Amino acid sequence: MKYLRIGRPGYETPVALSDGKYYDLSGPIGDIDGEFLQRGGIGTTAGFPEIDIAGERIAPPIAKPSAIVCIGMNYAAHCAESGAEPPAEPVVFYKHPNTIVGPNDDVEIPRASTRTDWEVELGVVFKKRASYLESEEAALDCIAGFLVANDLSEREFQIERSGGQFSKGKACPTFTPLGPYLVTPDEIGDPQALRMWSKVNGEIRQDSNSKDMIFSVARIIHHMSQFMAFDPGDLLLTGTPEGVALSGRFPYLAAGDVVSVGIEGLGHTENPTVQA
Amino acid sequence: MKYLRIGRPGYETPVALSDGKYYDLSGPIGDIDGEFLQRGGIGTTAGFPEIDIAGERIAPPIAKPSAIVCIGMNYAAHCAESGAEPPAEPVVFYKHPNTIVGPNDDVEIPRASTRTDWEVELGVVFKKRASYLESEEAALDCIAGFLVANDLSEREFQIERSGGQFSKGKACPTFTPLGPYLVTPDEIGDPQALRMWSKVNGEIRQDSNSKDMIFSVARIIHHMSQFMAFDPGDLLLTGTPEGVALSGRFPYLAAGDVVSVGIEGLGHTENPTVQA
Repeated sequence: MKYLRIGRPGYETPVALSDGKYYDLSGPIGDIDGEFLQRGGIGTTAGFPEIDIAGERIAPPIAKPSAIVCIGMNYAAHCAESGAEPPAEPVVFYKHPNTIVGPNDDVEIPRASTRTDWEVELGVVFKKRASYLESEEAALDCIAGFLVANDLSEREFQIERSGGQFSKGKACPTFTPLGPYLVTPDEIGDPQALRMWSKVNGEIRQDSNSKDMIFSVARIIHHMSQFMAFDPGDLLLTGTPEGVALSGRFPYLAAGDVVSVGIEGLGHTENPTVQA
Repeated sequence: MKYLRIGRPGYETPVALSDGKYYDLSGPIGDIDGEFLQRGGIGTTAGFPEIDIAGERIAPPIAKPSAIVCIGMNYAAHCAESGAEPPAEPVVFYKHPNTIVGPNDDVEIPRASTRTDWEVELGVVFKKRASYLESEEAALDCIAGFLVANDLSEREFQIERSGGQFSKGKACPTFTPLGPYLVTPDEIGDPQALRMWSKVNGEIRQDSNSKDMIFSVARIIHHMSQFMAFDPGDLLLTGTPEGVALSGRFPYLAAGDVVSVGIEGLGHTENPTVQA
């Protein structure tokens, strides 16, 4: 099953996409949030009316998450281009949940920014509380679905103005485009074998695969659950591969650019950038 | 006005404390959250019934915040005891919002912990969106109220297992006791002149004053609003003064200890610790 949300900010309608048809889930469902996912989502679209989504804004596929937990430095080649050693165990930071936007919404270049960068990431949404898990199998059982995310980053804010804490360059407004879909695990198969890419103005930047993660999705969740609890509705971003502007190989984003990220089976974003 | 919440987790009743009397705000108020605070709270307790809170659990004084934004290294003497230089500008990290507990709830020592530490902090709760603010006066105008918080920290997780990102040792379950009250600014006066302290088993640990902050509350909010947006209901923790176990002067917490933090005019917490 694929879930999405359509309509203007604050007034989104939850929708299911199955066999090429869209179904209106509004009413009893409420929203695509932790409560809905904890209940198991919907097993079937039977009984829900079809809906035409042509011309509608595509919103983030989940309601504002209770937290956005991010893993840094999770691809060896990205560590190298960032001037860092691969970490011994997962490195974590957070983004403010109010940074999420839809897959085609405007992304704002922050007012004082000179180095706004893109990062394609495999996103994981939780359906169960994950705390002190006993195995990687138990970790996979907590996953409601996957989505593609752009973990936008202002590198001067993140590295030079932060005292070393990444979050300062990660939580600018509109810095987490998501979607278009939340895709249930049965539709994805092995989350460690997904091609992922980013483009700026149609030119390829990142072109990699989730098999190159240092710490797999299951390992991250199992490991992090010893240090924190994930709740239903939480969003975990699992790190980005090489090919960002920080490498020096590409220019940073400028207002007017269009930045896209995509992952096999999860669709892609395509966000115009504007000056804040 | 002081706001508090009483009752068991997930079923809290919002309460106002004014002139020594408690008033039941349940019904139209909903909860002590961003929406309530954005509407301006209540100007008067007139029309609300008095309530007896004897024997009730005191909950966190705010509903689960949309984000917990924390400033690190904001007192020079604490930087020194932590082996760090005072920062040139505010250093930010996040805690998961699911870490909040009430002022007398159990605090869990994480399973693999050897160095669980306390931090008394002045907490700020927002009533307005704060984004690209033009002045420190505008920053103060975004504040709904103040509270006392304990920013519990596992130092091995934070420093040695984190790749340098503080959040790994900051977001363990129960690591953010709050309260008992959210106190409106008119009752506090100057937020940079508040005595603050922590105790373990009744013995003093930290004993300082918010005047020793490197970056004032107004300066933090004004500065950070250039890098992120605060939303109504967000919680900002403004750093801790010297006197934590990381200094080497005191033992770390062990199950069975009682840890307290207090700030002048905001009340105090008193949390028993238990093994997770």
